[in-house]
Amino acid sequence: MALPIGPAEGSYSPGLEGVIAAVTSISYLDVEHEQIVVRGYDLIELARQMHYPQVAYLVIYGSLPSADELADFNRTLQEQAALPEAAYRLFQLMPRTTEVMDAQRTVISFLAGFEDPAELRDPSMQANLTKGVRLLARMPAITANAYRTVHGLPPVEPDGELGFSENFLYMITGARPDAQAARIFDMSLTCYIEHEMPNSTFAARVIASTLSDIYGAVAGAAASLKGPLHGGANEAVAHMLLEILQRGGASVAEAYVMEKLARKERIMGFGHRVYMKRYDPRAHLMKDYIPQLAGRRPEGPELYRIYQTVEQVMLREKGLFPNADYPVGLIYLLLGIPIDLYTPIFLAARTAGLVAHVAEQHANNRLFRPRVLYQGPWGRHPNGQP
Amino acid sequence: MALPIGPAEGSYSPGLEGVIAAVTSISYLDVEHEQIVVRGYDLIELARQMHYPQVAYLVIYGSLPSADELADFNRTLQEQAALPEAAYRLFQLMPRTTEVMDAQRTVISFLAGFEDPAELRDPSMQANLTKGVRLLARMPAITANAYRTVHGLPPVEPDGELGFSENFLYMITGARPDAQAARIFDMSLTCYIEHEMPNSTFAARVIASTLSDIYGAVAGAAASLKGPLHGGANEAVAHMLLEILQRGGASVAEAYVMEKLARKERIMGFGHRVYMKRYDPRAHLMKDYIPQLAGRRPEGPELYRIYQTVEQVMLREKGLFPNADYPVGLIYLLLGIPIDLYTPIFLAARTAGLVAHVAEQHANNRLFRPRVLYQGPWGRHPNGQP
Ligand SMILES: CC(C)(COP(=O)(O)OP(=O)(O)OC[C@H]1O[C@@H](n2cnc3c(N)ncnc32)[C@H](O)[C@@H]1OP(=O)(O)O)[C@@H](O)C(=O)NCCC(=O)NCCS
Ligand SMILES: CC(C)(COP(=O)(O)OP(=O)(O)OC[C@H]1O[C@@H](n2cnc3c(N)ncnc32)[C@H](O)[C@@H]1OP(=O)(O)O)[C@@H](O)C(=O)NCCC(=O)NCCS
Repeated sequence: MALPIGPAEGSYSPGLEGVIAAVTSISYLDVEHEQIVVRGYDLIELARQMHYPQVAYLVIYGSLPSADELADFNRTLQEQAALPEAAYRLFQLMPRTTEVMDAQRTVISFLAGFEDPAELRDPSMQANLTKGVRLLARMPAITANAYRTVHGLPPVEPDGELGFSENFLYMITGARPDAQAARIFDMSLTCYIEHEMPNSTFAARVIASTLSDIYGAVAGAAASLKGPLHGGANEAVAHMLLEILQRGGASVAEAYVMEKLARKERIMGFGHRVYMKRYDPRAHLMKDYIPQLAGRRPEGPELYRIYQTVEQVMLREKGLFPNADYPVGLIYLLLGIPIDLYTPIFLAARTAGLVAHVAEQHANNRLFRPRVLYQGPWGRHPNGQP
Repeated sequence: MALPIGPAEGSYSPGLEGVIAAVTSISYLDVEHEQIVVRGYDLIELARQMHYPQVAYLVIYGSLPSADELADFNRTLQEQAALPEAAYRLFQLMPRTTEVMDAQRTVISFLAGFEDPAELRDPSMQANLTKGVRLLARMPAITANAYRTVHGLPPVEPDGELGFSENFLYMITGARPDAQAARIFDMSLTCYIEHEMPNSTFAARVIASTLSDIYGAVAGAAASLKGPLHGGANEAVAHMLLEILQRGGASVAEAYVMEKLARKERIMGFGHRVYMKRYDPRAHLMKDYIPQLAGRRPEGPELYRIYQTVEQVMLREKGLFPNADYPVGLIYLLLGIPIDLYTPIFLAARTAGLVAHVAEQHANNRLFRPRVLYQGPWGRHPNGQP
């Protein structure tokens, strides 16, 4: 008997490679011109010339803010930065085995309960942006305190006098950052702000398409971003560089990579579905800041040599270029940021993009509901019936 | 200037309608033969002849359990049914404005922290099934207590002497269910257990494809299921039937539907991406149990008349048939289950399917990373540069 194996009209592209999943006016990876287009701007120009809140405003509202709009937006971010007290008690309930990324996701999910239920369910553009900006404002406190409590450190409250990125770094380290650290950290957040349709953004839009709310969509994106094939890569990069350092430094880096490749293992921070055999423009931007940061840690210069060697070997052996997570992993290490915060920071920065995507999805919605290619058994009956 | 608007190879199907997103051997909607195929069996035959734990075993492990395997599985479900004490304290922290569905999602996310971090990240089949069965075992306690605490009721612990579905209903109502209620509730759980690639299952697989873990994937599915276009529909059905009852009962049902349709509103519990103009076999099965349950509530017979009228009008006006959420919404109402538990119960039942899908995704993984059709602006520069 010939059996159906899936809808006749569909052809199958594993991982939906090359499949168009949505219409968007938020961003586009223009591989041909090697540009990340964000609301019509080149993301790299934005990262060089603007600060994170300006670009967040652009991503969320569609145009760069005027001076007044920016002042208002910054004030909103500051006023809404604090967490309800119950969030701190939730942190205290988490076992020390909790990963920071999971603690962050749990608090995002928990905070949904503090919205008015009717507003929470309201999928209008205005309601989404209001909720989304509040969530963005809270992300530094959620993220830094997720880390602090899991590591038994006392929680820290936002410093109302600092800007978004400075306050974020302050809450992580407990000290006000110097200008160099603040600027480069801010630039890394802008690099992470929005990137077309990566897995986490896709997950958020899939969830939002049931007309579920923005908290659930961002919690789903947090779950996605944790994976080592996605946001988890920046943490894996730092662990790898430190492991090579421990095994002997730059002189053993080539052998280390060759062995991994021989075992068919992946080197994190390299490759990308869309760029794959080209340089990720964000990696290109960020790598130039490594030399000036290398002096901030005694082992910095050696880590940078390891970094360069691994990059060379990967290009020679696999023709693969670094993605954004490769330089950012090292930069965060040099800035003294604890490794298990790297992916949570990525999510905090990406929140602006996620808010824009959820709002856009709700504004022109159709339920995501694909089909499958079924290769399981047929014609079985319970209780041994024919 | 001609501008690129997306990868040349892709054509766009809104909501990925008809697009094959995965290869699976778990289940298939065989529309041609009007059958929901689950591991080779007809889901309706399974629901009629088996109990939920048997079908959960089938979905998770691929074949029906022997008597010994079933006894082991039931023992595991019972032994792992209790929640860590901290989960109860987490419930207490949730504001009363929290929706049950969100409370459930938050606890699932929170419980990830109680796994050993290495095991949590282990994507092997065995590790996934171990974690997944533990999560399934805990779903009744998570779900019932999410409801109870949000409503200020004292928490309830699982009753170790009851089977999965009986215990679930006991924890919800606080009383041991009679045989009729237990049997029909169990059948509804089986109807909800697995359904190919609905939005929530797709969200879980998208998330899992970054090699993120099963807790995150199920939390993402919970976020998806909340939406009124998906799992949220069973709650919406109950609210609608009660609203029509309040407005005058079956005699005003037709006018109620006609008005809604005239306003281009959707009637929840009708339509389905894959069946759309055919009867959902699960709805067909479950509706036959409504008459025998109608006597359990004084307004039951009138609710049933409303139910029938709405169904007739929807068929006549839109050619749309009920989906599973339509009869189940009424059945849960007749069983005295509080309405804000309907979608959380759906998620609890669907956990078996989600576990199977996450494990299958990890066993043969490729990152989900589609593309977009960009329709935003181009060529803008910050600071007014040309
Ligand atoms: C990002 C990534 C998942 C995209 O890959 P993709 O489009 O799904 O492509 P595939 O996973 O199918 O990989 C294609 C080929 O390149 C190889 N490859 C891709 N990235 C690789 C890496 N980082 N190291 C080694 N090999 C790699 C794969 O092994 C595969 O080789 P094969 O065809 O011989 O099996 C992949 O490049 C990767 O895993 N990178 C490392 C994780 C990472 O840095 N993620 C952050 C992205 S921002
Ligand atoms: C489930 C559902 C989202 C699938 O729909 P889909 O494949 O995405 O199809 P669309 O949403 O594009 O709907 C197609 C058409 O049918 C109409 N339609 C579908 N379901 C309808 C409903 N329940 N009531 C009224 N009209 C409905 C739509 O309005 C649309 O009409 P149009 O072409 O004139 O605009 C849809 O049927 C629905 O919203 N149902 C109600 C929610 C529900 O019960 N969900 C549970 C599913 S298990």
